[in-house]
Amino acid sequence: LNIHDLPTPCLVVDRAVFDTNVAVMSEARPGLSLRPHVKAWKSTAIAAILARRGHTGFCAATPREVDGMAKAGLGDDLLLANEVIGDAAERLGRVGRDGAARVTLAVDSEATVLAAAAAGIREVLVDVDVGSFRCGCPPDDAGRLADLCRARGLHVRGVMGSEGPGRREMGEDKAEKVERAMAVLLEAHDRVGGDVISGGGTGTFDSNRWVTELQAGSFALMDRDYARLGGPFRPALHVLATIVSSNPAGGWAVANAGLKAIATDHGQPGVDGAHVLYVADEHTVFSPDASAATGAVEVGDRVRLLPGHIDPTVALHERMHVLDGDEVVDVWPVDLRGW
Amino acid sequence: LNIHDLPTPCLVVDRAVFDTNVAVMSEARPGLSLRPHVKAWKSTAIAAILARRGHTGFCAATPREVDGMAKAGLGDDLLLANEVIGDAAERLGRVGRDGAARVTLAVDSEATVLAAAAAGIREVLVDVDVGSFRCGCPPDDAGRLADLCRARGLHVRGVMGSEGPGRREMGEDKAEKVERAMAVLLEAHDRVGGDVISGGGTGTFDSNRWVTELQAGSFALMDRDYARLGGPFRPALHVLATIVSSNPAGGWAVANAGLKAIATDHGQPGVDGAHVLYVADEHTVFSPDASAATGAVEVGDRVRLLPGHIDPTVALHERMHVLDGDEVVDVWPVDLRGW
Repeated sequence: LNIHDLPTPCLVVDRAVFDTNVAVMSEARPGLSLRPHVKAWKSTAIAAILARRGHTGFCAATPREVDGMAKAGLGDDLLLANEVIGDAAERLGRVGRDGAARVTLAVDSEATVLAAAAAGIREVLVDVDVGSFRCGCPPDDAGRLADLCRARGLHVRGVMGSEGPGRREMGEDKAEKVERAMAVLLEAHDRVGGDVISGGGTGTFDSNRWVTELQAGSFALMDRDYARLGGPFRPALHVLATIVSSNPAGGWAVANAGLKAIATDHGQPGVDGAHVLYVADEHTVFSPDASAATGAVEVGDRVRLLPGHIDPTVALHERMHVLDGDEVVDVWPVDLRGW
Repeated sequence: LNIHDLPTPCLVVDRAVFDTNVAVMSEARPGLSLRPHVKAWKSTAIAAILARRGHTGFCAATPREVDGMAKAGLGDDLLLANEVIGDAAERLGRVGRDGAARVTLAVDSEATVLAAAAAGIREVLVDVDVGSFRCGCPPDDAGRLADLCRARGLHVRGVMGSEGPGRREMGEDKAEKVERAMAVLLEAHDRVGGDVISGGGTGTFDSNRWVTELQAGSFALMDRDYARLGGPFRPALHVLATIVSSNPAGGWAVANAGLKAIATDHGQPGVDGAHVLYVADEHTVFSPDASAATGAVEVGDRVRLLPGHIDPTVALHERMHVLDGDEVVDVWPVDLRGW
């Protein structure tokens, strides 16, 4: 099968770029010092490739991701790096009991601790607010929560904390911001105990030397927003689209991939030799640069769109087509979608 | 089943509001003068409800939508209101032959006309650019394209034209803009012939008196962006989420529905009694208003998020839960996703 035979819109992965990205990260963060985040690609096929390189501990953002990883035999050490309560906690308790998987939950409040204990969860990390304006307990409260966990029979493996917004920032003060956030996390860790300090991400893979395990997922496929930061990882994933309409007088062309095929929350898609005007439900409308080597855009031409944000883009598709040059050599199902 | 038993995030539809929206539209645009657009809700369950009210002609944006409608026995008159070429055209040709469905394609270029003819498509509409900055042939070219269609054995049913951006506008000049766009479409129609003048949408349901059939879908479920225009249709669909983390000192709370559950391309979700700070992959972070009657937000509470844009939000989910008050009375599969 050749790339020109693929129905569009669809996801295509350049396998050579993907392999290089994985090799670079694997060398920087070998074995369990990397905890790949499945939310970035929602595919047990990619998780299995990482596991074969020794990265057998994963983190996830949803119960379905944890459940799917356990069912795929990738349940050695699954961290739900997110808070859950009620039915969702109970479901994760069942995965831990029935699925022959090791399941660890993040907790950041009395309510989430009690839900974990009631659900038969055995292990937790205390999630600490280190300035991400999202989840995480106040740092002062981490010790008390850890005590509550232990009183409820939960094993506290350590702490986690997301530097959050800082991770996708550039700027000169990025290193300082990360260091300040991690100082808060280490202080909380002193009060909590345990072996694990979990956090960080692709944007801090070489600068965050405080975490014992890096929660990174984007590095494998990358996106336009992360690529702007520089660094060694290159975009491996594009949305392949077909030009279905062209307006040479107006100076624009229309590709058949829109909001339902590519996420725009971190900015418009990138198109080589063109600039994107806007994205509608099933269309990306772009203006080819006059100087572009690609020349005129004709109806029927194929075009590659580079997503602004990888995670929500992949979640829009059922599969990724893996390319060696123009040859389709594999299909990776996006089998961890939904909740 | 009660709303409190639903796993979150999930879509919930208030059936009474939906029914009122449908009744209002049905009265304004009875029978075939409404051509409901399935792209807004991608569900044959909703299409079947509209068909039972006499709206048996539908339009769609993707081959899968057309295929799925035909397979569900809703193929009386299916318009792909979008351009296709190559494999996608061939697939639609097969639906028309094998599926006992009547399939009409939009065409706006020689390439799309030739693709339709080669695929065994029998009927087309000439799609005219009336100022939407997207698809559609130049108005001057519509007659020539219609002749080309007929020379290739295609039956030309008429024209279509999208007022595009104007449809979601408010402003005093909206009516004028719509009238100007429709004047262009009528002129093109004079050169093309046929019975059909197709166009418009929810935002022009009562003002566009030139089209013979209105292409509207959003009216049934609505969204925050359309609701801001006023008019008789009310939001019937929300994303139901659970508060998983709360930071009373910081003044924010975190709901477990993010970019993978709710589209943000037409603005942030709405939360009653609160304002949304930002939306991340699996989280919506919001700040409850001090004066809100809801009072403190507790972990475990449920919250309803009103999507900014209905079409890409529904496409993120596998089903909608239909409510009568707090009782779940039905499930509508979102069975037309993908391409």
